[in-house]
Amino acid sequence: MLERIRIVLIGTSHPGNIGGVARAMHNMGLADLALVAPRCEIITQDSISRASGADHLLHQASVHATLEDAVADCTLAVGASARSRTLPWPMLTPRELADRLPGECQASTSRVALVFGREDSGLTNAELQRCHAHVHIPTNADFSSLNLAAAVQVLAYESRMAWLSQQDAAPTPDTDDELVPHEELERYFEHLERTLITIEFHDPAQPRQLMARLRRLYLRARPEKMEMNILRGILTATEKSADKQ
Amino acid sequence: MLERIRIVLIGTSHPGNIGGVARAMHNMGLADLALVAPRCEIITQDSISRASGADHLLHQASVHATLEDAVADCTLAVGASARSRTLPWPMLTPRELADRLPGECQASTSRVALVFGREDSGLTNAELQRCHAHVHIPTNADFSSLNLAAAVQVLAYESRMAWLSQQDAAPTPDTDDELVPHEELERYFEHLERTLITIEFHDPAQPRQLMARLRRLYLRARPEKMEMNILRGILTATEKSADKQ
Repeated sequence: MLERIRIVLIGTSHPGNIGGVARAMHNMGLADLALVAPRCEIITQDSISRASGADHLLHQASVHATLEDAVADCTLAVGASARSRTLPWPMLTPRELADRLPGECQASTSRVALVFGREDSGLTNAELQRCHAHVHIPTNADFSSLNLAAAVQVLAYESRMAWLSQQDAAPTPDTDDELVPHEELERYFEHLERTLITIEFHDPAQPRQLMARLRRLYLRARPEKMEMNILRGILTATEKSADKQ
Repeated sequence: MLERIRIVLIGTSHPGNIGGVARAMHNMGLADLALVAPRCEIITQDSISRASGADHLLHQASVHATLEDAVADCTLAVGASARSRTLPWPMLTPRELADRLPGECQASTSRVALVFGREDSGLTNAELQRCHAHVHIPTNADFSSLNLAAAVQVLAYESRMAWLSQQDAAPTPDTDDELVPHEELERYFEHLERTLITIEFHDPAQPRQLMARLRRLYLRARPEKMEMNILRGILTATEKSADKQ
């Protein structure tokens, strides 16, 4: 299970924090580290010192230009957030997330991304809206900003606890089919937006929150492969039918 | 409850770690920091930088020559340990410790000490034997040594979770809107089926399991009123666009 969990760091600016994250991950048995557009060097004296023996995770880390690329093969993406902002999103506590992990990691093709934002400003709304759910680590309201490595430590610890508690009982899956990976969902959202423009339901010049609301709905539903085929088929039929005019 | 929990650090050698501990404590709502025979300065550029706004905890910290002095008024002392050594000792997981905290902190005179050892060698047997129980944070067997601030973060987080579960706090809702009643969902499914026939995606003579699959998907998503308005609006726009032919 733990090998199917990826820690994704976006726009990190301090090498020491990346090292601290590597140490926290290796301590808890996680190994898959992905860095999106890091704003600092990854291998430095500081990152190696803070990794304290876990620097192989720094060398193995994958580096990506975009979040989409880093989570393309992921079946679940959860963004660490202080609070859901403009649009409320499914919100988990770290423990609720942990309870879901054994089920979410069951299939050999499962990949779960835990996504962490910048030290100074966290995740953007656009980044949060790429995630199925958000996880909020409960904090003192007057002092809520956790160090990046500390935040990873808490979720990695909860992941390990879930893995340990699972060693006895195997959970039953909720679905009978494979979930679609993230990139397929993104292609669906693009197709959906094009179609909504074609049928004049959506005006990109006045987007309001239409696409964000539809993202939230479909991310919540977690479509399976067969369902995704149906949804794509409906869009294609809608376009064809509109074209005939 | 949280004000009755003291973090005790013995023989710490890196100011940065003391700063990181202060930040983790303040993030989780703990304030009582006791340092036993520290092997470094407490207030340095490094400790203040890592405390990141929680440096008042460094200034308030009490300094003691011995562990006995630091825990003199404590009603429970729990030592963080990789493993109970020479003599097996009552051993708790962080979660078992958390389960005990509300009861242990109930009286106004209660004080619980969570005791952490040196960065390089942890707690001595004599120090562990001054504790009522030991707590072991589960780690990767091949890489078990946690950073000091990370270890404090895990136990402080579990303390906060125990405190929160006691508050009987209302959970934050995932949505900002009402869920739609069942009859509205049924009207949606009728509208959806009509539209899919119009755009020639669905043939009621050969239904296969199309509508059942779509039902399962949307029932799983639990649409809210606003989302249902959008979904109905898309169907109406689809019909209008198909009608124009």
